[in-house]
Amino acid sequence: MRVRNKPWAADKLAEHTNYVVTNPEALKGKWNDHFEKNQPIHIEVGSGKGQFIVGMAKQNPDINYIGIERQTSVAVMALDKILESELPNVKLLNTDGGLISDYFEAGEVDRVYLNFSDPWPKYKHEKRRLTYRSFLENYQTILKANGEVHFKTDNQGLFEYSLGSFSQYGMVLNQVWLDLHASDYEGNVRTEYEEKFAAKGQPIYRVEAQFKD
Amino acid sequence: MRVRNKPWAADKLAEHTNYVVTNPEALKGKWNDHFEKNQPIHIEVGSGKGQFIVGMAKQNPDINYIGIERQTSVAVMALDKILESELPNVKLLNTDGGLISDYFEAGEVDRVYLNFSDPWPKYKHEKRRLTYRSFLENYQTILKANGEVHFKTDNQGLFEYSLGSFSQYGMVLNQVWLDLHASDYEGNVRTEYEEKFAAKGQPIYRVEAQFKD
Repeated sequence: MRVRNKPWAADKLAEHTNYVVTNPEALKGKWNDHFEKNQPIHIEVGSGKGQFIVGMAKQNPDINYIGIERQTSVAVMALDKILESELPNVKLLNTDGGLISDYFEAGEVDRVYLNFSDPWPKYKHEKRRLTYRSFLENYQTILKANGEVHFKTDNQGLFEYSLGSFSQYGMVLNQVWLDLHASDYEGNVRTEYEEKFAAKGQPIYRVEAQFKD
Repeated sequence: MRVRNKPWAADKLAEHTNYVVTNPEALKGKWNDHFEKNQPIHIEVGSGKGQFIVGMAKQNPDINYIGIERQTSVAVMALDKILESELPNVKLLNTDGGLISDYFEAGEVDRVYLNFSDPWPKYKHEKRRLTYRSFLENYQTILKANGEVHFKTDNQGLFEYSLGSFSQYGMVLNQVWLDLHASDYEGNVRTEYEEKFAAKGQPIYRVEAQFKD
């Protein structure tokens, strides 16, 4: 996602350590200590402007959410939403998704969400896609046994690729949606991007894929 | 597929035993003896009016094709195409897809094609879908080890269901297409139905799924 660079963003994130985790290595294995309640942890890799993770945290007070976003100027927009909501069950982590296995203990996470990830359409960039096998390996490491990845996108090429990648890694596709907004799926929390895109009438794809440990 | 009943169709099929197999139990384990050349066998379950199976046989002379069609009045239309083409590598079998494990030896078949199968959209009819697990079990039985099922459809609900069904059965999705005609897939042979449907501009879905024995 391209946004205007905000030189002040890093400072603002650093000011709100109650919501923004700055020492993830120190929390490895004890993330729940950092939340008000000890309950299942769901993470979103690439949480962008935060509408999804904050919406999910509102909808599901019995889950602790962590939004992971590499771009500081984007993460700060998610922080604003959290500050406004004052929710006790959502935190931000301003880092790269490829590093998550350094920050979470094996089995510490209950679910991984990927929403409208960068499609990296060129084959030479395959390894950067968040559904490439090296990322799946990371998710599997930090997820509890038989953990799930829930992925949605509007990008046809990325979805085709990801179904194959999940399956070839050994994951099982529990359910697939080829037009989420026209389906009877309940409780969908839209991302900012999803709202804009849906207005064009094109389908949103979704899959729930599960590791078999 | 609904077509006008043709009372003469059964007789016509019975007249052309060089193309229409009337004794499939007798050929179990020795289907290749019935063809001009001993070469891999690909079957289409639900071959309809035959445009796909005849087109494939023309395109791939090094494969023996068997089209399986339950409806006599439809199978006779495929017979007409075969009679016209006089191809040595395509046969018809006028029977139910659910019986194939009675007619083929374990490992005798190299690939299964399913094209625009009846979607049976009601949940209570799930077991009739040709991608339901009992059918997959049959395909796996007659296919050689690590055999593949290639499936295409325009039906979104059936495709969503089938991706899940293949995956939950333990098959691996080697490749998925969400808009076959807009893709760079080469050598696609269209069915009669596919031609009509494509003209409306809606996407054709396709998947290559593989058993892991």
